[in-house]
This record gives sequence, C-alpha cells and structure tokens, in this order.
Amino acid sequence: MSFAARHIGPSAAEQRRMLESVGYGSLDELMDAAIPEVIRWHDGLDLPPAASEEEALAELRALATRNTVAVSMIGLGYHGTHTPAVIRRNVLENPAWYTAYTPYQPEISQGRLEALLNFQTMVADLTGLTTANASMLDEATAAAEAMTLARRASKSTSQVYVVDADALPQTIDVIRTRAEPLGLTVRVVDLAAEPLPEEFFGLHLQYPGASGAIRDDAALVDGAHAVGALVTVAADLLALTLLRPPGEIGADIAAGTTQRFGVPMGFGGPHAGYLVVRAGLERMLPGRLVGVSRDADGAPAYRLALQTREQHIRREKATSNICTAQVLLAVMASMYAVYHGPEGLRAIASRVAGRAATLAAGLRAGGVSLASDDFFDTVTALVPGRAAAVVAAAEARGVNLRLVSEDAVGIACDETTTYAHLSHVWAAFGVEPVEPVTATVPLPRESQYLTHPVFHSHHSETAMLRYLRRLADKDYALDRGMIPLGSCTMKLNATTEMEPVTWAEFADVHPFAPAAQATGYTELISQLEGWLAEITGYDAVSVQPNAGSQGELAGLLAIRAYHLSRGDTERNVCLIPSSAHGTNAASAVMAGMRVVVVACDDEGNVDLVDLDRLVDTHRSALAAVMVTYPSTHGVYETGIASLCAKVHDAGGQVYVDGANLNALVGYAKPGRFGADVSHLNLHKTFCIPHGGGGPGVGPVAVRSHLAPFLSTTVSAAPYGSAGILPIPWAYLRMMGPDGLMRATGAAVLAANYVAARLREHYPVLYTGNKGLVAHECILDLRPLTKATGVSVDDVAKRLIDYGFHAPTMSFPVAGTLMVEPTESEDLAELDRFCDAMIAIRSEIDSVGSWGADNPLANAPHTASMVTADEWTHPYPRSVAAYPSGVDRAAKYWAPVRRIDGAFGDRNLVCACPPVDSYA
Amino acid sequence: MSFAARHIGPSAAEQRRMLESVGYGSLDELMDAAIPEVIRWHDGLDLPPAASEEEALAELRALATRNTVAVSMIGLGYHGTHTPAVIRRNVLENPAWYTAYTPYQPEISQGRLEALLNFQTMVADLTGLTTANASMLDEATAAAEAMTLARRASKSTSQVYVVDADALPQTIDVIRTRAEPLGLTVRVVDLAAEPLPEEFFGLHLQYPGASGAIRDDAALVDGAHAVGALVTVAADLLALTLLRPPGEIGADIAAGTTQRFGVPMGFGGPHAGYLVVRAGLERMLPGRLVGVSRDADGAPAYRLALQTREQHIRREKATSNICTAQVLLAVMASMYAVYHGPEGLRAIASRVAGRAATLAAGLRAGGVSLASDDFFDTVTALVPGRAAAVVAAAEARGVNLRLVSEDAVGIACDETTTYAHLSHVWAAFGVEPVEPVTATVPLPRESQYLTHPVFHSHHSETAMLRYLRRLADKDYALDRGMIPLGSCTMKLNATTEMEPVTWAEFADVHPFAPAAQATGYTELISQLEGWLAEITGYDAVSVQPNAGSQGELAGLLAIRAYHLSRGDTERNVCLIPSSAHGTNAASAVMAGMRVVVVACDDEGNVDLVDLDRLVDTHRSALAAVMVTYPSTHGVYETGIASLCAKVHDAGGQVYVDGANLNALVGYAKPGRFGADVSHLNLHKTFCIPHGGGGPGVGPVAVRSHLAPFLSTTVSAAPYGSAGILPIPWAYLRMMGPDGLMRATGAAVLAANYVAARLREHYPVLYTGNKGLVAHECILDLRPLTKATGVSVDDVAKRLIDYGFHAPTMSFPVAGTLMVEPTESEDLAELDRFCDAMIAIRSEIDSVGSWGADNPLANAPHTASMVTADEWTHPYPRSVAAYPSGVDRAAKYWAPVRRIDGAFGDRNLVCACPPVDSYA
Repeated sequence: MSFAARHIGPSAAEQRRMLESVGYGSLDELMDAAIPEVIRWHDGLDLPPAASEEEALAELRALATRNTVAVSMIGLGYHGTHTPAVIRRNVLENPAWYTAYTPYQPEISQGRLEALLNFQTMVADLTGLTTANASMLDEATAAAEAMTLARRASKSTSQVYVVDADALPQTIDVIRTRAEPLGLTVRVVDLAAEPLPEEFFGLHLQYPGASGAIRDDAALVDGAHAVGALVTVAADLLALTLLRPPGEIGADIAAGTTQRFGVPMGFGGPHAGYLVVRAGLERMLPGRLVGVSRDADGAPAYRLALQTREQHIRREKATSNICTAQVLLAVMASMYAVYHGPEGLRAIASRVAGRAATLAAGLRAGGVSLASDDFFDTVTALVPGRAAAVVAAAEARGVNLRLVSEDAVGIACDETTTYAHLSHVWAAFGVEPVEPVTATVPLPRESQYLTHPVFHSHHSETAMLRYLRRLADKDYALDRGMIPLGSCTMKLNATTEMEPVTWAEFADVHPFAPAAQATGYTELISQLEGWLAEITGYDAVSVQPNAGSQGELAGLLAIRAYHLSRGDTERNVCLIPSSAHGTNAASAVMAGMRVVVVACDDEGNVDLVDLDRLVDTHRSALAAVMVTYPSTHGVYETGIASLCAKVHDAGGQVYVDGANLNALVGYAKPGRFGADVSHLNLHKTFCIPHGGGGPGVGPVAVRSHLAPFLSTTVSAAPYGSAGILPIPWAYLRMMGPDGLMRATGAAVLAANYVAARLREHYPVLYTGNKGLVAHECILDLRPLTKATGVSVDDVAKRLIDYGFHAPTMSFPVAGTLMVEPTESEDLAELDRFCDAMIAIRSEIDSVGSWGADNPLANAPHTASMVTADEWTHPYPRSVAAYPSGVDRAAKYWAPVRRIDGAFGDRNLVCACPPVDSYA
Repeated sequence: MSFAARHIGPSAAEQRRMLESVGYGSLDELMDAAIPEVIRWHDGLDLPPAASEEEALAELRALATRNTVAVSMIGLGYHGTHTPAVIRRNVLENPAWYTAYTPYQPEISQGRLEALLNFQTMVADLTGLTTANASMLDEATAAAEAMTLARRASKSTSQVYVVDADALPQTIDVIRTRAEPLGLTVRVVDLAAEPLPEEFFGLHLQYPGASGAIRDDAALVDGAHAVGALVTVAADLLALTLLRPPGEIGADIAAGTTQRFGVPMGFGGPHAGYLVVRAGLERMLPGRLVGVSRDADGAPAYRLALQTREQHIRREKATSNICTAQVLLAVMASMYAVYHGPEGLRAIASRVAGRAATLAAGLRAGGVSLASDDFFDTVTALVPGRAAAVVAAAEARGVNLRLVSEDAVGIACDETTTYAHLSHVWAAFGVEPVEPVTATVPLPRESQYLTHPVFHSHHSETAMLRYLRRLADKDYALDRGMIPLGSCTMKLNATTEMEPVTWAEFADVHPFAPAAQATGYTELISQLEGWLAEITGYDAVSVQPNAGSQGELAGLLAIRAYHLSRGDTERNVCLIPSSAHGTNAASAVMAGMRVVVVACDDEGNVDLVDLDRLVDTHRSALAAVMVTYPSTHGVYETGIASLCAKVHDAGGQVYVDGANLNALVGYAKPGRFGADVSHLNLHKTFCIPHGGGGPGVGPVAVRSHLAPFLSTTVSAAPYGSAGILPIPWAYLRMMGPDGLMRATGAAVLAANYVAARLREHYPVLYTGNKGLVAHECILDLRPLTKATGVSVDDVAKRLIDYGFHAPTMSFPVAGTLMVEPTESEDLAELDRFCDAMIAIRSEIDSVGSWGADNPLANAPHTASMVTADEWTHPYPRSVAAYPSGVDRAAKYWAPVRRIDGAFGDRNLVCACPPVDSYA
C-alpha cells in the first residue's frame, strides 16, 4: 500500500460513501466546485514521484551519511549532551507526547502541563528569579523578547539598548533585527573595558560570556538600575548549578536556552529557549505560562495562565507574536533535571568545569595564554596568527573548535567531553597533555535549587519511565483519537517521518559546524526549500524561521525592507481583515507597521468595499495587506484575485498567511494567484508534530522581487529548527505530487462531509462556492446558547466525556466551534465524532429537564466524580460516564474536572506547588 | 550517575533504611548472613569495569559496524521484510508492550491477548486449519513439536517419522535432535522421487520446499492417512495468501514461522513460530493458547485456555516443555496482517512472486536451467560446477545467495527485493536482464482468509497507531508499576539495552549470511558467552537455546550424551525435587530420562534423607539430579554442596536450573559449588524483557567435561535469538562487576524488606540462614483462606484494584503468593506494595461483615461496574474503586471483571469471535 494510502484516513470506498453524502461523484468534481477557478492551478506539481517508506528512509539514510558527527567544542550556546535514553524513547519518540496539541483544553493536558510547570520551576530556581514561562523559541529570540519587555517596563525614556560585546553573536544579530523596526537603538559595548552609557532602557549581559569569561556583573546591574534600565542576563543553566545566579545580583530578566539539558543540537534546533523575570514583571512576560488553579471540586489543576497577555487576545496591542513555543523540547529538558536532580546536575557541571580547567592547565603549561582566567566550560586561547591553523588541526583530529578571530580560538567543554578529546585539542595546539585537575569556579553558588520533591523522586530508570507514562496517560493526543481543531491541522505525524530525527547524524551536528560536515543537511534543506517553492508558486524559500510567528515577521520585514529599498519610507500601513488570527496583527506591529482592520461581510468574506475604501484612504502609506487563504472562516473566498490586484495597484504587497495551505496544495499556488509572500507552517500542513505546543517551523516564501530581503536573521541558528526538517522532507518525498493532491482533496471532502452530517444539528456558519466549505467548517452554537444557556465551553468539555478533543473554540467567531477533520481521519472516526456531536445536540435539547446541574455543565466527568459514594445529580451516572456510543473498555478519563482559570489568574502560582497543597 | 544506580531502584539512603528494617548494618553483612558460606564466592567477577550508557552504546555501535547489511536472498525460512514503522516504534520499541509479563492475569492483559487471538486467527485462516496456538519458538522446534503431537495422535504403532528431503535443513536437524532421546526414527526421503515407506506415524512436508519447488502433496497426504499417520505441512504464510492451503488437502498440522510478517531477521531470531491443527487435535496442542471466555458480567474476555495441557501442570506427563514463547514477535506479525489486511498481503505476495518469476525468466533466457518450474518466491538454479563462483560473484555485488551444492544456487525473493537486486543476480550468473513479468502460481488459492473486521479496520497509520495504543492501555506492564512475580524477575529492561535491537546492523542480518558479514555479532556473542561463563563459573556457554526450556533440554541432552559416550547406556534416572518447576520434569522426559521425585522437608528444602535413599535406589541408573538454586521456595539451601557430592559419588551429573541466578551473581558460582550444567534465563536475570510471554533466551552453561556435548542443534538458528543478545551484553557491560554484585544484594535486601514488613500480616513460609529469604519470599495465605474463605485468587485480583500485578500464585506451594520485588523497585514502590498488602489484610479481616459479596470476591472492579447506576454491594463504591492509598489521578482500571476460565475451556473458541458477540 502506498504511503499516501496510509496517510489518508478514508479508503477509496469510504471516500465514495462520503462523496455521496456531500453530493459529488468524485473528488475532482468536488474540488472543481469548491475552489474558485480564478485561483485554480491545473498543472499539477513538479515534484519527484512518491517514494515508498523504505525508499524514503534509505534516501534519508544516504543524506544522513553525508553529515559528519564530529566532537563539537564550538560552544556559543550549543553543546553536546547525553539525552537519557529513557527520555529519548519515551518522550521524543513517543506519540503520546509528540502528537499532543497545545494545552488549551487543560483538563486533558495535565500531564504536559505538569512537565511544563517543572520546566518553569527549574528555570526559576536555577536563575534565582521568580516566574518563567513555558519556553521560548531559542536563546536569541528570548533575548530579543527580553529587550522589548525591558522597553515596556523601564521608566527610562531612552530608546537605547546596551548589549555587552561578549554576548553570543547570533543573539546580537536577532536583537538588532527586532530593534530596528521598533525604532530602538542597539549599542554593543565591551563592558569589560568601557563604561555604561549615560542613558539606556535596558542592558543585556551574557553569563558566562561567549568567550567563556565569567565576570562579576553586580556593579553593572546596579548601574543600570540607577538610570531606570532593566537588566537581562542570558545565562547558561548548567553553569548556574555552580555559579551565583543572576537573580542574586538583582537582574530583572534572564533568558537563554535549555538545549544542553538533554536536547540534541540538531544543527541548530529545535530546543527550548527560556525567559524568566523577577516578581512584578510576570504579567508582562510574553508567551505561554503554566499556572496552578483548581477544578470544580477544588482540586489543584494546571492550565495556561494569564492568556489575556497573549498575542491572540491583544492583537495589534501585543508586543510579542510568540505563539507556538518549544513544548516537546521543554518537556525533555525538564525531565533531564527531574532525572538527574540537583546533585546530578551539579555533578555534571563539576565534571564539565573540570574538563575545562584541565584543558586550560594544559594550554597554559604549553605556553598558550588565555583570554580569561575565570571560566566555567569555555576557554578562549590566544594564539596570535595561528588560530585558523589550530582550528584546522583540531578538525583533522575530529574535533570542532571555534575560530574567534585570526588570533583566538574558543574551546567549549560539555557533558560529552572526554579526556581523549582534550588530548586532541592539546595536540592541535601543539602542547603536551597534563593530568586532570579539578575546577574552582569564581562566584560560587551558595543557594539551593530544585528542592521540590519532583526533582528527587525519579532518579531510577524504572521510576522515570513510570513518571513519563503516568503523565502521558493523563493527556489526550492524536494517538488516542481525533483532534478536530480548526486552523490547527492535527493530521498524522507518520513514524517514518519521525524516525530520522533521532538518528545521530541529524541529531548531533552543531549549527556552526564546518559546512563540509553538514552537506547532508544542506542538501536536504535545499531540496525541501525547492519543493516548498514549487508547491507555493514562489521563487525563494527560507526555512530559518523556527515558528509560524517568526515566518510572519520575516515576511513582513522583507516587505518593509523592499519598500525602504525603493525609497518608500512612508509605507507602513498593514491592512488585516477582522477575521485574522491575532498573531498577524502582532507581527505587523513588530515589523514596524500600523494595523488597519478591514471588515468582513455577512458571508464572512473580506468586505471588498471596505477594502477599496481603506486602500484609497491609505494609498500612499499602504505597505501590505495580510490575508489568510482559505480564510480563517474555512472558505475559499472568490475575491482573492481582485483583492491582490487592488493592493498591488496601490503599491502595496500581498501577504498570504499560509496557515491553511493544506487546503491548497496542488490545487492553487499563492505565489501564482497574486501573493508576494507567505509563511508556511511545517508543523501543520507538512506533518511536523505539534509536540504539545511546539516545535514548529515557519518557512517564509517570497516572489523574486522580495528574495533579496530574506536574509535577515530572525532565529538563532542559520537554518532554524533544522533537526526536524527530515519530517516534511519525508512527507513530501513519500506523498509525491499525486498523493499531496489526494490529501488536499480528502481534507476538503472530510470537512464537507462533517458539515453535511452536522448541518441540521448545528448551523454551518460560512460557506463558499455552491455551499461548500474548504478544509474546515464553523458550527454556530450561538442560537443554542441563547436558547438553552449551554455554552461552547460546555460542548467542548462534554466532548471529552465522549472521548474527543474539542474543536477550536470561539475562533474566529465567538460562540462557535471550528472543526477541521484533516485527511488523516478515517470514516469510522469521522462518524464517531459526528455521532457524538449529534448526541450532544440531543443532550442540549434535554437541558431544560435537568436544569443547571446537567451533564454539559458538569463536563468533563472524572472517574473519581462518577464513582463517588453519593450521587446527587439529576441525570444518572451512566450518562455522565458513558454517553451514547462510548466504548466502555477504551474510555479515556479526564484526570480533573473543569478548571477555573480565573481563580488561577487571580492567585498566580507558576511553579511546582508544595506537595501538601494536594492533600 | 552510574548505570547501576539507574538500574537499582533504591538509592543508598533508601537501602540504609531498608537494612535497618531487616536488622543489618550493611549489604555485605546481610549477604554474609543470607548466603551459606559453603557456596560463597569471594573473589568477585573478572569482568570489564562498568561502561557508561553512552560508552556502551558507542561500543555496540562499533560492533554493529562490523556487521554487513547485505541484500539477503538466501531464504531457508528467513526473509527480508519491511517492518511497518508504526509497528516498530509502537510495539517493538514501546515498553508498554515489551515489558509486559505472560498474560497469566488475564484481566490486566486483554490487549495482548487480543493481539494473540488475532495471531491465532491469522495462522488458522492462512493455513486453512482450525486451532493455532499463541506462537512457538521457531519453525524448527514447531516442526519437532508437530512430530511428537503426531506420535501421540497417530494410531500407527510405527516409530518412524518421514521427513521430505526438501524440508529446511535446520528443521531436519532439530527434528533429529528431538527424536533420538524419544526413540523415534527419522527417515529423510526424497518424496519427489521415492515412494512413502509402508509404515510410519507421521509425515513432514515443506510447502513450498526448501528448493522453492511447489508440489501437489494431496496424494501424499492421503497416502499417509491410509497408514494411520498424521501429516504436518511446514508452510510459508506469505505463500499461502496465493496458494491452496494445507488444510484444504487434509493436512492435520501446519508449522512454520511468521518472521517475514514484519519481524526483522536478527541473525536468526527472535521470531514467532506457529503451530496449528485441524479440529480434534486442539487439546493436544502444546504451548500457550488464547481463548475467548467471559467475565463476571458475562462480557467476552480473553485468557489462556486449556492450561491443564501445559508443562507446568502436567510435569513429567507433559510431551512438550515449551513455556515462554515469542509473544512480542507474534504481536508484531499479527499487527502486520492487521495493517495490510488480506488484500495487502496478497499484493505483497504477488509482487514477491513476480520478482521470482522475472528472475527465473532472466535465468532461463540466459540458458540457466531451474530445478523446478513451479515456485513462489525461491528458485534453484542449476549451474554445474559453477555454484560457488556464482555465489561469490553475487556477494561481491552485495547480494547473498544460497550455495545449495557445487552445482546449484538458491535464490529467494522477498518483500524487499527490487528489480535492481535481480540485475545483480543476473550479472552474477552472467546472463542478461529481462523485463519484469507477472507470476502465475500453481495450485492457486480460491478460499478467503482474514475476513474478520479486525483485518479490515486499521489500514491507515492513524487507525493502526490508535489500535496499538488502545490495546496497550488495557494492559498492565512494568511501565505502570511493580510486577512482583516470584521466580520471574520482572526487573528493569533499560532503554539503552533495548535501543540497539532495532538498529539495521543487528536487525537485518540473515542467520546464514557469510561469516565475514557477521563479525560484529560473533564478537558480541563470544564476549557474552565469556562473561556468562565467568559469572556462572562454568567452562563453556552456548547461547543457541532460544528459551529457558530449550536450554534445559540442551543441558540434559549434554548429560545424556556424556553418559552414552562413556558407555553408561543405562543412566536415565533424573531426580527432581517436588518443589521444581514443571518444565524441569517435562524437559527430562524429552531428554529420554525417567523422572523420580525427591521429597522436600518441612522447611521447604530438598529432603537430603530422601535424596540419599533415592540415590542409593537408582545408583547405577542415576543420570542426574536437577535442582533450582536458590530453590523455587526462595531459599539458599545449605545442603546444596553435599547434594552435589552425593550425586557425583553415584556417577550422576548435577543440573542446577539457573532460573534464580539473579540471587547468586557475584556471590556464588554454580560451576564452582558442584554443578555440572545450568541453563540461564537471559530474559530474567539479564534483562531481556518478557515481551508479554517471550522472547526469551536460555543459554546452556557446562563444565569442561560436558562441553563436547553442547553441539546438538536445539534451535533453528545457529545462535538462536541472536537479535536480542545486545540486551544482556549491554546490561553486563554497563553494570560491571561491582554493579552486578550490588544488584544481587539489592534484590536480596528488597525481598527481605518485604518479608519483614509483611511477616506480621501474612506468615512467610520458608526461610534459610538466620530467618532470611533469598531474592523472593512466599506469603502463606492458607490459614487466612481457611478462616475467611478469601482465596489467593481474591487477593491477586484485589491487588489489581490497588494498581498492582499480582505476585506468583500458588507456585511453588498451592495457596500462597510468591513475591520477588527485584532490585529495580525503589523504596516508594516497595512500600506502596506492602501498604496495599497490609490494607488487603485488613479487608480480609472485614470480610465477615460483608459476607460473600465483598470487594475481594468482586475484584477486579471495572470502571463500568463502579459507575453503574445501581449499586447493590454492601461496601461503598469508593472502596471498590479507590482502596486505601490509590492515586485517583493515576488509577489503572481493569477493562474486564474476573474471568471465568473454565467456561472458556468448556466452550473452546480460539479465534476472533464475530463482532456481534460483543453486543
């Protein structure tokens, strides 16, 4: 059977039955009817024909072989690490973790929420600060977010941001990228030699520095505070197990990466960045934040806290566009800390420091001087004029060092460094080996960390294995059943796509390894970019952005740079329809644009009259229009071509958000129907799993006139989250052009099938040509809510009792549910979902007889609740536990009852609560 | 942290607390007190010092690199196959499947029992016979079991077993090994040329033959039946998707392997063999058989059927010693059929047949003649005098062929064969390529197979993934909690030990590949055998036996051969204590011995007075004594040295069953305290996971005088289940000598800790030195049962409600529970278990107040039962669902209530029941 037939859920016979329900004779007929001819692409896709799973794996194996796994001592925020095998197999390779969705339905996400709370506790403890979020995309973007947070929080009127010259180079680059459109000035200062400027709103320090040097920054922090500036310390968490943490010298913010806590380098990513703040700043923290609240029984329960801070709520008022983060990798890093515990981490750090001290002793004994005598794991050796030769000599011995300059070589030790590696380094420098020495670090840490029992209870592999299983069992992921989330495309993440991710040749390559060592990667990336260009109809693609939000920003920055390059300095208006995802508006603001909202008409389409008006109003200032296609309403709007033309006529650029590209693949190409730029979501359309809220990859694709403006650094690593690019590569390689088109058709068919089955029970809100939807449909619950009081929330939570993850709630229209079945769900599962929705509709009709104490209001029902000795509800226990159609032998039980989010927001707790709080 | 510290559950601090409870100051003191000085080994283990997990993986990677993954066209029952990635990751690499125990507690094993029922259905359907068991160790042993089954069932008085000359050579070898001690004569006849003999009790046919030839065997079957003989057909299941099955020509038995259904070759194993019989023979079928029965609510439920047939019940009356089978691999093979369905399998078979037809066409066109024109996947090419040259030429092109003779070359096609492979073969023969042709097979199949819905419902990867998860979620395995099974040693199966098993360099090597292509394997095996010899104190070790039972047989056959070699033709008495595992007796009978039972004294030890008496009585006929040490009572018997001396004095050999070797490692060596031979259980002491009932590996270890008699072929492949030998290799490599001793000590400490905590609630039946037990303890429930009526079963099933797998029930003493905590359980889990047992004791004390309708008698309680609208039991629901100490958020719910085994035995159903039976 072809891979496409494995990926696409409904068999040919099932598709025929579905087509019958929808009223079409074939997929072709359906697609012809659904997709406006004006955008329709009829020439197929010029991609290699489908490979079998085994052929694709063999090709990936051949590509992998072209990468060299060398000993990496380059450092710069990427270190060798031992992923505990129990974590690799049971998190990174376990679909229960990697196919999970963002924990927006907290009742069925308690496992990963607990893991993320551990992550936040770990970050807060190690940095000595108060509140950490549930991960950032990487260290560089975390540092850039720290800058904008500082700008908001600082009372200084200065627009100057000071960055220590010993910061990571890629961090400086990303900070510059982010500062420019916001009108902020980045001043890089060698604070080891020069004083602080007189005015600035924020200060960025690296600890230890990129050179490895450790400096006492207490006075700098005080100096910054004296002028009203906030201080961010980009700190290495492993170093912080030994060193005085930034919180103890008054730092306001810390940012960094948790990569070396067991997450493979992966040629640059994905890894979980972190961001943590002192008390008083927590409500300004960007990104997702896990907090403790309580459920309907008053039991402790976790959920995402303070969501009103986030970009999807604040839209153009948001100061960050971060959305998908790096949950899967944050879970891994947190489990590394859980498995090792504080003593284990300290022991690892001491071994690493000992290696560096030994290395330094050998170099010094051999007459090589060092840039600093105070270091943790990295030394910078001064070899005037010889640096390149030393680096080359080491490379010849299988060891990568950092070429700092003609005269300096950086050498970073890590958990994987052995004495034999040091011998190679010494040989490369031409010095003699010395005996191992133990390290004494400057500024030793005296405070405790990771004192919570969770960091002391799972140190045997058996205990760790069970903890991982126990958490996973609390959650609902794709491996249990359908997750029909509109706009989020929870399709199959095939095993064959996932397997290469953990091969050493992809996992263990440093992003700044010599190019010759990564030709497998660069070839794979080049092919993938080419295939994505072919699919989208654009001329150039960059995979650097490590999330959709970053792709948006990169695309908008390209538009900005394009206008500026033409002297169009006043073009800063970005038209965005009211139906757009909040991230669009947030990204536009971050790209220095002014958001002007375009209305939608009664059909949910962009109101072309309003568009005309606004294009006229802002003609000379028009930078871009930003639309999603098919729309976030799940409709193929017919006006798209005319919209593009109007905006172009006014000198603006057309940004098509590729969030819904899965409804176009093979049938329409944004780059050919009028758009200038798009970002794609490889974690949606192209099968990178959601991982419970990341990783994502958000390539940006442009037409040729924008290609020169794609080179801005938006992520820390040159190719972003390169380590997971084998996933979309394998997907495209195995589907082939025909399979991809069949997937698009099957997704559209599934959405229309669901719409057809549910229409008489719940009105379908918007449709396009011939009453068809695209790849998703919106069920309007507002009339029912008005009539019965049953809310969208009630239906969503009741679906848990039926064994489903809820559809998207109240987006893009409040009071509705948006259903995207995807092509991967077979007819049995589609029908199980429709049956559940229909049964719920009949429950809604009965609510009158139950009153407020009804199974919808009380959903989800836990086993604990339904087995209680007393049962006081007006409906029977069997209705609570096993509503119509639920398989008793395969029942998924939510571990907590409905969670009171507001309570947690009022009583914010974002670290592991003391054990007695569960009593 | 060292691997040993990850493997051993209790931390040093926890061990100190446990030692305090037991009353010893240190592990050394405890072990000095527990182990009789007469056997104590004080010189440690001469093994390499412990490697870290990463170092061990690197060494295994280096060994793997020394294996060559060539294109295998050797055939002979081992074929290349594509393991569906979703099955590899979610079965073979998933601890929920691989750490499960044999489904003796069926209520918590419904998932794997369903998978095995699918396996049985698949085998019965494809062979056209009626009742298949739940796997055999390999094709050769399955064929040997078929022979003994035929001997039992045949009315013929002949002792002659006829084997067609075109049977697999290794099958013929194993049949000979098994026949000889039973006094059966094996006659190999070329039935293509010669007629059947006049008298014989059984006939073994291969279909297709080892040469690839397909012959219509209907007349042979009739001929055999005419003389009262039974017919076994060793049939290739993939071929049977196209060919008329053996059941349709009246075969009585079919045997074979399911390897090519997605199970990697692994240099010979493990794979699931199969055995299936016609109606009327099912109660003679050896091995484990899954059947459908019903639970206390009358709902369909699965369990092992007809257990009274098995060796552990029938003991010396058993005709097979098979015990552990190949469940994990049977699950994989069954899932391959579930995933492909009948159409998919037929398509694969047609492609394979097409390759073979094309290959043949090319050879014929090039003037090469073939041994047969009727074949499925294998052709034998006749190249007089040139065979070795052709094989060498192919090998040079990366393709392994079979050197049949100087004049003939065998070439087997399989699922992985490509046209490019054929080109290499043609080139090796020096013939020109031809265009692909389609195959027409002789004796085409007309009957349907795999019609049950399970083979039609999980063809998308999403559906398959969920089916696997749903089944796994019904089961309780080590990844959920402790499995304190006495004598079964359910310790950690570490991920690092497991990972190499699925590396291609270990997975994809044919057992008969040229030796130069398997030097990684042979080096690993040689090291492993050496380390096992050092641990046991023996002089030679063979890893060939692919289960403990086979190791037993191999060891006893060595004793038999030794006596015979010395002209001691009358030595056939094997003394076995009454406490022995039933398999001992069954193996002895299979080795041609007569079992004489030695009594045990009141302390549970071998009654040395009775032994004296029996040694005297049987002095001249004494072949061996067979004892387990420490005893199956979990005691270090002090009389062992004197026992060995007595038997040796009488000219007998001492067989020490190594089942409990984990209580000796580093502290005593059977080969040094008087034993001559042992088998070990790599799946118990040395961390191969139980896999739900296999794979196992049972190496046999002997002193030098028996070494020459180890060469008998007891398994199909030269090194048995070589593919999983990286597991014990990694365990030994990572534990090192000190870690292994610490593990032994920790296991003994844990058993004594449990005994100390539970002694006042349940009497501990047998103890040794100073009131200490060895690595397990027996809790005597008989007084409680007598007083209250609460049975061992009730306690075992009630433990499920508490979240535990029961200890071993009623072995070795009826009415008791035997607890073996192992070294891998940390103190928290040990205490959770003890707390549950103590809470159950208090429930037993309350049974009087409840009467017969009590939570013990009703256990396990399902969620369905406890959430029922009506509750009529005298105890509250909360007691049913969440007895004392159960974590409500992590509750494991049994999917069925207590199963009525007897009902199923009376109404035997051993294939998937029709769907409406669940209504």
